[in-house]
Amino acid sequence: MGVFQHRWLPCSPPVAVLVLCLILCMSTPSAEARVRHHRWEITYQFKSPDCFQKLAVTINGGTPGPTIDAQQGDTVVVEVKNGLLTENVAIHWHGIRQIGTPWSDGTEGVTQCPILPGETFIYKFVVDRPGTYIYHAHYGMQRSAGLHGSIIVSLPGGVKEPFEYDEDRNIILNDWWHRSTYEQAVGLSSIPFVWVGEPQSLLINGRGRFNCSQAGTTAVCNPNSPQCSPYVLTVVPGKTYRLRITSITSLSALNFEIEGHNMTIVETDGHYVEPFVVKNLNIYSGETYSVLVKADRDPSRNYWAALNVVSRRPTTPTGLAVFNYYPNHPSRSPPTAPPTGPLWNDTDYRLDQSLRIRARRGYAVPPPRTADRVITFLNTQNRINNRTRWAVNNVSFTLPHTPYLVTLKQGLLHAFSQEPPPETYDYQNYDIYAVARNPNATSSDGIYRLEFDSTVDLVLQNANTMNPNNSETHPWHLHGHDFWVLGYGKGVFDPEKDPKNYNLMDPIMKNTVPLHPFGWTAIRFRADNPGVWAFHCHIESHFFMGMGVVFEEGVDRVGRLPTSIMGCGHAKVLGRKP
Amino acid sequence: MGVFQHRWLPCSPPVAVLVLCLILCMSTPSAEARVRHHRWEITYQFKSPDCFQKLAVTINGGTPGPTIDAQQGDTVVVEVKNGLLTENVAIHWHGIRQIGTPWSDGTEGVTQCPILPGETFIYKFVVDRPGTYIYHAHYGMQRSAGLHGSIIVSLPGGVKEPFEYDEDRNIILNDWWHRSTYEQAVGLSSIPFVWVGEPQSLLINGRGRFNCSQAGTTAVCNPNSPQCSPYVLTVVPGKTYRLRITSITSLSALNFEIEGHNMTIVETDGHYVEPFVVKNLNIYSGETYSVLVKADRDPSRNYWAALNVVSRRPTTPTGLAVFNYYPNHPSRSPPTAPPTGPLWNDTDYRLDQSLRIRARRGYAVPPPRTADRVITFLNTQNRINNRTRWAVNNVSFTLPHTPYLVTLKQGLLHAFSQEPPPETYDYQNYDIYAVARNPNATSSDGIYRLEFDSTVDLVLQNANTMNPNNSETHPWHLHGHDFWVLGYGKGVFDPEKDPKNYNLMDPIMKNTVPLHPFGWTAIRFRADNPGVWAFHCHIESHFFMGMGVVFEEGVDRVGRLPTSIMGCGHAKVLGRKP
Repeated sequence: MGVFQHRWLPCSPPVAVLVLCLILCMSTPSAEARVRHHRWEITYQFKSPDCFQKLAVTINGGTPGPTIDAQQGDTVVVEVKNGLLTENVAIHWHGIRQIGTPWSDGTEGVTQCPILPGETFIYKFVVDRPGTYIYHAHYGMQRSAGLHGSIIVSLPGGVKEPFEYDEDRNIILNDWWHRSTYEQAVGLSSIPFVWVGEPQSLLINGRGRFNCSQAGTTAVCNPNSPQCSPYVLTVVPGKTYRLRITSITSLSALNFEIEGHNMTIVETDGHYVEPFVVKNLNIYSGETYSVLVKADRDPSRNYWAALNVVSRRPTTPTGLAVFNYYPNHPSRSPPTAPPTGPLWNDTDYRLDQSLRIRARRGYAVPPPRTADRVITFLNTQNRINNRTRWAVNNVSFTLPHTPYLVTLKQGLLHAFSQEPPPETYDYQNYDIYAVARNPNATSSDGIYRLEFDSTVDLVLQNANTMNPNNSETHPWHLHGHDFWVLGYGKGVFDPEKDPKNYNLMDPIMKNTVPLHPFGWTAIRFRADNPGVWAFHCHIESHFFMGMGVVFEEGVDRVGRLPTSIMGCGHAKVLGRKP
Repeated sequence: MGVFQHRWLPCSPPVAVLVLCLILCMSTPSAEARVRHHRWEITYQFKSPDCFQKLAVTINGGTPGPTIDAQQGDTVVVEVKNGLLTENVAIHWHGIRQIGTPWSDGTEGVTQCPILPGETFIYKFVVDRPGTYIYHAHYGMQRSAGLHGSIIVSLPGGVKEPFEYDEDRNIILNDWWHRSTYEQAVGLSSIPFVWVGEPQSLLINGRGRFNCSQAGTTAVCNPNSPQCSPYVLTVVPGKTYRLRITSITSLSALNFEIEGHNMTIVETDGHYVEPFVVKNLNIYSGETYSVLVKADRDPSRNYWAALNVVSRRPTTPTGLAVFNYYPNHPSRSPPTAPPTGPLWNDTDYRLDQSLRIRARRGYAVPPPRTADRVITFLNTQNRINNRTRWAVNNVSFTLPHTPYLVTLKQGLLHAFSQEPPPETYDYQNYDIYAVARNPNATSSDGIYRLEFDSTVDLVLQNANTMNPNNSETHPWHLHGHDFWVLGYGKGVFDPEKDPKNYNLMDPIMKNTVPLHPFGWTAIRFRADNPGVWAFHCHIESHFFMGMGVVFEEGVDRVGRLPTSIMGCGHAKVLGRKP
């Protein structure tokens, strides 16, 4: 197991090589493009990331998994061997658009059958834009079991970022439970609903700290485990650091702060941000940010890097890392109390940060001026057959067991509902501020079919949950695309007035965007990537409970599907007589 | 979900029906043969069989699952829907020979690919012999997670058993851990080896009793849960009961006793036993026994039915049920202390019971007088790459990820090792009473290919484990066949002398047989069932760690394989272009 790299030979036959060569040549000087080859084995291991021992799903024995480092235009090949005993797996490359390789998106039920125990699946895709991306399991609730890591795509040699820094550091943020994802999932599907509760710990680069005195007598909890010593970010006084911050939480919206240090936001989801300074960073599951931090404070001491829950009433202790000024000892605790973050329910504060994120001058990609189609998604918590579910426009999404990419490409249209889901909701009469009078919803695996190359607006509308005076933050993630963030607002989106205030000047492009409590978020994208793509709330339990949709566009233009994505449902065995 | 039965119409077309009709007509009057149709959904549920709550794999919400009741000659159809989230499943019909339906044996890696989440697999087979059988998961270590139940095949109307009884009761015996099978399996594969320890409870019909004061503070343990009230076997004074006793333990050899009541053994593994009386019954995982018990004691009180561990030093409390004389209240505790069973390490006592089990006079099936081939299996505990394993003849078995039935039938011989495993071991020099000087073994997925219709003897030879003065009991189970039990012995099997003492007169036929510590067991079978069949230690962790082999016989005679068994490994996608 490990990483090895091939220098790319751009002009050697056979045909497959030439085709790949063409893809590479389009995006970057061919002399630079390489194949970055990784071999991963997925196994369960006992891990104590917060001192409390539990089984985690690991890559080559670790969680987070290894970082994929590549250069713009490189081809990344990851051979994933499923070394679990009875459990399947699938891995999504979050933020990679998979242009020309929709079968490598890694979304079980949408783009592939799951990888069975003992099998090896080869993901192969081009990383066509520099930036900070994520990979993670996209099957069941395996993501929260530990299967995730970072993808860092650098610029080609000789090309410079529009900002300066001395060093680069990855920071992966996560929330962590002691109960297994099986227990979580069974509770979510139970009647009555059983909620696993808030996370026990917040992890920074896979390290947290649970108070072992609260562990049960039969639990293994070792406060001296090296696995749960805090992450140490060592800095040299005077230098500037680019922190590539990723949130892969299952549930929590987070606020990240380095005590006494400002951060300048310069990148998000692979796009340059017009720089602005914050004291702390609100970050939602599925988002990435690059921030610049200068080690310009009193160098005689260390500082806390602190992670706090926002948007839900926090019961999880602050996650801590050490911002260590060289040559102080990394284990020297900062002399001050760790920051506790902003008020958890200060929605305006978080909305304000969202609104400030604009494309960097000179790097803005202008959006189409108008949309060909507008789909409005009312986000609600619902009930179906006495189970708690989430829905959009009163339809709770269920994943089929044959991937849409296969069924659509092969015309197996009986494999899922052919009834298109609703385009909007009754916004004139629905009261987003109250518990729905009738919270019952229906479930469906129907999808939205988009005209190829059309421009689509999506308006996410938040509402009250089934609890009075409660609306949650939903970070929505779109596969296969970046989208322009046209606007955020409070209250009910007005389809007449609000589009007039859309930012068509310098909207940031992203792949994940928050929908704030009782508010709306409007985004625009071009349906120009042949394939089938999920769009869903990145809170793992919310998607599991139906908060997502699927788009098809130009599936007739998709090339021949690899048989490796098949083997399940209607794609179980195609053809030859045994 | 549920059970429904079709009256069989023996003379209606089409061809498939006629073929099935022929099969049925051979074994039983066609007017009686029915199709017994079951629809099962496999899900995780929180269960508290011993008061301690944990996730169990259930069938239609229960563990043990529903009993399959059928009559000799019936066709059983079980539609198994995998309702697990990310985990596959496969179910074996233990003791059913699957004549003509080797693809319904349910052995993942041998006869089928696993059933994926969301998929439905249809098992269909004829139950051609009356008796007491078992079904259970045969994938990973799912059996010990709760997926098991009974198959009861009764005689056709008008045909009588050779013994009398008033009522019939099923008794399923099991051992139970609080840690998940995932945790168990990871420990077994770890370096160093991590052993989950002895079971927390013994269950009788899915009910046990853990002392909740020993549970951790974070555990859910409720001594008043109705799920863990003891099983009550209510009897009417003077009546005789046939108890169909099944052991489905993952590890434990058991001794079952009804306080103060003798038991007459009359059936084992679907074969009539020449009746003999015991005070208690030694039963090994994978075995079934019918015993007759007469309610002939003081009817003014209740009695304990007690279950104790034998063959391993017991640390698990006695499992208890109530043998309740009507009309005493079932919850009235017997006034006496529960039986503690025989000495756990009294191997002679258990060997003696094994030797007494002979075919019932008038029902003995004579074995072939000689064997065409003798294979000797030295049972050892070994080390491979610092992992603890079990092996036979120094080869530790590894299951491939494409079922042998598919690879052999389709000639995909590259899918597994073509090197035949060894036929014997160096019995003249190997010291079975000592820890092996070199415990290193090799692993292989090679199989034994048997000449069709030949007679094969298997000699199981026990030995010392890697701990001094220790040899374990291994119950070996053969798929697809019953075998004759020719003999048991102590010490080293002598291939010259011992066969002369084989019982060729009235050997019992069984499908599961114990290999006692430091002893040997010899069995004979006819390789007359076209297919591919596992033969393995029925201790779940032992098979998981390599203690098994596979036989192929007459695979060229196997009919066209159903595509439903495919979908994995080399059988992933066969053919048609997408």
